[in-house]
Amino acid sequence: MEFTALKESFVIAAQNVLRAVPGKTERADLSGILIAAGEGIVTLSGTDTELGIKCQFPAQINTSGETLLPGRYLVDILRRLPPGPLLFKMEPSNDHIYINSGASHFELLALPSDRFPRLQFDDQAAVAQVPELALRTGINQVAFAAARDGLRQLLNSVLISFENKKMRLVATDGHRLALAETVELDQDIPGEYLVPVRTLEEVARLIAGEEEVQIAGSERQIAFRTKNTLVQSSLVEGKYLPYTSVIPTEFSWQAVIKRTDLLAALERAELFSADKINAVNLKLTAEGIEVFAQSADIGRVQELVPAEIEGGELDISFNVRYLLEPLKILAADKIQLDFTGPESAALISPTGSTNYRYLVMPVTTRATA
Amino acid sequence: MEFTALKESFVIAAQNVLRAVPGKTERADLSGILIAAGEGIVTLSGTDTELGIKCQFPAQINTSGETLLPGRYLVDILRRLPPGPLLFKMEPSNDHIYINSGASHFELLALPSDRFPRLQFDDQAAVAQVPELALRTGINQVAFAAARDGLRQLLNSVLISFENKKMRLVATDGHRLALAETVELDQDIPGEYLVPVRTLEEVARLIAGEEEVQIAGSERQIAFRTKNTLVQSSLVEGKYLPYTSVIPTEFSWQAVIKRTDLLAALERAELFSADKINAVNLKLTAEGIEVFAQSADIGRVQELVPAEIEGGELDISFNVRYLLEPLKILAADKIQLDFTGPESAALISPTGSTNYRYLVMPVTTRATA
Repeated sequence: MEFTALKESFVIAAQNVLRAVPGKTERADLSGILIAAGEGIVTLSGTDTELGIKCQFPAQINTSGETLLPGRYLVDILRRLPPGPLLFKMEPSNDHIYINSGASHFELLALPSDRFPRLQFDDQAAVAQVPELALRTGINQVAFAAARDGLRQLLNSVLISFENKKMRLVATDGHRLALAETVELDQDIPGEYLVPVRTLEEVARLIAGEEEVQIAGSERQIAFRTKNTLVQSSLVEGKYLPYTSVIPTEFSWQAVIKRTDLLAALERAELFSADKINAVNLKLTAEGIEVFAQSADIGRVQELVPAEIEGGELDISFNVRYLLEPLKILAADKIQLDFTGPESAALISPTGSTNYRYLVMPVTTRATA
Repeated sequence: MEFTALKESFVIAAQNVLRAVPGKTERADLSGILIAAGEGIVTLSGTDTELGIKCQFPAQINTSGETLLPGRYLVDILRRLPPGPLLFKMEPSNDHIYINSGASHFELLALPSDRFPRLQFDDQAAVAQVPELALRTGINQVAFAAARDGLRQLLNSVLISFENKKMRLVATDGHRLALAETVELDQDIPGEYLVPVRTLEEVARLIAGEEEVQIAGSERQIAFRTKNTLVQSSLVEGKYLPYTSVIPTEFSWQAVIKRTDLLAALERAELFSADKINAVNLKLTAEGIEVFAQSADIGRVQELVPAEIEGGELDISFNVRYLLEPLKILAADKIQLDFTGPESAALISPTGSTNYRYLVMPVTTRATA
């Protein structure tokens, strides 16, 4: 095995693949990145057996072959090399790898690769082709609402469904639920996939800058492909909760408000809501939303944020983090808050758009004095 | 107490002062920032009783007075306020503080300030006036060489001495020693001060962007003043080691080398030197310095860095971190390495300058194969 490649393309591919390599593992081979050279292309792959990432880059291949190197060290070495071409070479006699770059000569010990899981994608059918920005925006708009406890697999995942040439993403941790729909796709094959939220966050990171993302799926796996990158993941087993029934369709109060104004006021209120349930109180008045929070130790803050209110007065409290997260991620100038009552769910959405809905439950202990 | 001030100047002063406020403390008052208003100036101060920082900013004072507020919260609140003027007001009746900024109304509970240590500087004599850049460069060039164990107070400090219109800074952890001298000062009062390295690092951070720094000292304290900031610190008691006697004056080998070339090669070698003593081996040859490191688990790296060598061949090993730190901090294009022998001290200095010297002991277990 011998090839010449640019350090710049090698290091980008290796950094991407490293994201699937587990930081700690009992199995030495899983800490490695598999390097395969053949037909003008070098392909790197890494996996923790659930999530797998493959990246490729062009190279001048003198002899094809493959080897497994410690992932973290490979990336650290590549990062510290000068820019330009490097020679990568394996001596079949002793399993040693030689990297020559300028005046630097590295000799690395390969890992045993017999048991390293090869990423297989044969049984996956193409499902849809999604513009990169639409997919990345959708993932970022729902991923934060998934649970992070590592225990409830269903809530640690995002439901991706294809229907009527639309891709829909749903995530919930039981306290709030986020739902994003992409623009109309050229075509799709209807179906539902439960994907670990961690996988989707890696997808959002890796596809940035690409144009189109091919999504392929099977009963047990989903794969996201761009020109040079492939992210593959096991699916979560089970049936997702019937979320459509919990989204209210009729509301008695509405506030239309400048997103950044409400965000700034809530960020100030957050400082006073560190107690137990992070409660912040919202009062709908004729002039707008009065934001109030207090802490026994520190003091209190109160602020009126101008808004267009319909439905009269309402007094309702939320976990401030559950309001801050969607307000930070949305790009809309104005958002709309729809309320069903002081102790039942509220809905946040960008005004004039039906592509995004965020449902949040209030807290029942009020933050009022 | 009542004043109007710009959020921008208030938050910068508060952030600076917060650096002296201990993160964890048994005494509630020490977690506070003292705010004193009078004569067109608001002065903030914070201290952990050893290090103290005072900062002032202009304000329109309606009523003078002082109060103590939780430091971390004060900074967090100020950071999240919109730019522009704010009204700061204390109600004498209830010790509550009111901050009004735009539509935001804060009510904060003051801390009891009776026992808060007032920073006193009366018995300190002016020692010297030092250009900011010279002081900051000197601190950065020696501080990394001080010990960080929190146990050996003498080695956790930097010796500052004034003599012959020069300021000299010295730090050592027992394995290496850094010595920096500033340019000639207009005047100074000869003397020696043992200053905790943490204090000096805060000074370097806080004076950036100022022009001149006044240094004042007494038997127990040292103070650094700029136009709006004062950093004061207790001195470390004891006698610093007689460092001049350990700096060799005669050398048998010399290498003159491009600093960034050697730095890059050592950074690559560092990856292979994570074992016990972080050893990297240097071989002086006719062509330059051959850098070599190896690790039983990973492999090895070897690289020739061109250099002008005098004195013939030499084989010597160092803790790679002790070489990387001065090479990163120096700005010189070329540096000079002077050696006394394979098992005795080496000296690193910028070529053509006598203002900086870095003495480092080799490691005796070699990194060679």
